[in-house]
Amino acid sequence: MNQWPVPAPNLPSDVHPALAATAIAASRAYDQARREFTRVQLREEVADGADGTPTMRVDAIVEAAIAEAAADAGANLLSEEAGFIDNGSAATLVIDPVDGSANAALGVPLSCFAGALVIDDQPVEALTVWFDTGRAWSAHAGSPTPFRTTGRTKLKGASVCMMRPKRGTEEAWMRVANEADRIRVLCTTCLETALVAEGSVDAFADPGSDTHRLMDLIAALVTVPAAGGALLDLHGRPLTFDLDLSRRWSGIAAATPALADELISTILG
Amino acid sequence: MNQWPVPAPNLPSDVHPALAATAIAASRAYDQARREFTRVQLREEVADGADGTPTMRVDAIVEAAIAEAAADAGANLLSEEAGFIDNGSAATLVIDPVDGSANAALGVPLSCFAGALVIDDQPVEALTVWFDTGRAWSAHAGSPTPFRTTGRTKLKGASVCMMRPKRGTEEAWMRVANEADRIRVLCTTCLETALVAEGSVDAFADPGSDTHRLMDLIAALVTVPAAGGALLDLHGRPLTFDLDLSRRWSGIAAATPALADELISTILG
Repeated sequence: MNQWPVPAPNLPSDVHPALAATAIAASRAYDQARREFTRVQLREEVADGADGTPTMRVDAIVEAAIAEAAADAGANLLSEEAGFIDNGSAATLVIDPVDGSANAALGVPLSCFAGALVIDDQPVEALTVWFDTGRAWSAHAGSPTPFRTTGRTKLKGASVCMMRPKRGTEEAWMRVANEADRIRVLCTTCLETALVAEGSVDAFADPGSDTHRLMDLIAALVTVPAAGGALLDLHGRPLTFDLDLSRRWSGIAAATPALADELISTILG
Repeated sequence: MNQWPVPAPNLPSDVHPALAATAIAASRAYDQARREFTRVQLREEVADGADGTPTMRVDAIVEAAIAEAAADAGANLLSEEAGFIDNGSAATLVIDPVDGSANAALGVPLSCFAGALVIDDQPVEALTVWFDTGRAWSAHAGSPTPFRTTGRTKLKGASVCMMRPKRGTEEAWMRVANEADRIRVLCTTCLETALVAEGSVDAFADPGSDTHRLMDLIAALVTVPAAGGALLDLHGRPLTFDLDLSRRWSGIAAATPALADELISTILG
């Protein structure tokens, strides 16, 4: 068991009610799941998700709470395990119920709720909530956020979060590690891109493993540019709303477009 | 500026008053420093520490608060910036004022206070406090802690925290990364070893960079074994109390002695 409580999200007042309701439901469900289940139980794979990856028990529990909250709010839901749930609305919540599922299951206090509100096919608002602290980052597309990126433009001297190296990405990973000043691997893309947006780190990168699905990046797609940064795919593939959950990207979040470009050229070698 | 508050430490009741007082002073000083200074100012190198590494402003501020609290408590202090401060006691507090200094300065919410109470030359008690959440791990040498390691004995399937690869340790780093199930780089040894002790990750390793000083490992030296795990040096050098701050180790913390041995043999190749 993990004895640390999960606080309620500390939400700004202008968060869309459907996003707020789902985030609150997610935190509450995760808190209860940590009290009821052991780490081994939370990590157990209980189903295959709509995105083609196995669903851990912790994901299933939190997503069920989110689906109920989305239905109550009258919004559609696109989520990694359940896929698309049509509640007959022009508004769709695109949500990663538990980003950093392995962390969340094991008790490593680095996991979050991340979601965006999409009207027709345009992301208009995003919310990221770090479960273990209740810290929340809210952003509205096209409006500057109160938090800002660092503004750094060069990789030399930068602090960079990366996904872990995988077979085939080791060399690109090590090129970035050797060029940057500091490297971190937190295993939670949505929290790491929030840290880019608030200026705690300069950048985040998947060095080419094509791990990211739409819900891993859509909150950052709204939040990072609103904070002054850039959110791109390593290979320039457009990040667009799509119900096809088999699509993958290698997300790059950076304090500035210039830093994103240098990261991409360093990774591509 | 970093707008997130630093809570007071959530301390168990049986923490030694001198350790408790220094931990509380450290959290308060870090909280105030984050309000008063920008990230760039907190990161600025303001002196050379007694351990031979540069002292960031955030380290200097927190250590000054700790030194005052130690003097009030009548204990000696051995700390990385000030070195040994003899207050005429048989009790010495060996403290890393801010473990994860770069994180602490930048705003990455992964940094902690870590200290041990040494009587004559024996560490008898340890305390680690994660600044951003107030979570605390207390341990008394030779007494089982309520939190326990995972008990994992094999590297295959393990979740491992590592220091970042440095020139000369890249190959060892990648051998561990390829063998383990999950890899994280949090850049805060004392917090990472606390996560080993509480069973959130299976192990932590410096893959041979000899980065650790006594105060980076002494809290883990008490805490990890008390939780069922092992704390060793990569090359088998004994970890002993010593006023010589030029000594270095490559610390290995693991859920079990067997896992520590496998990590060491994997790193040494």
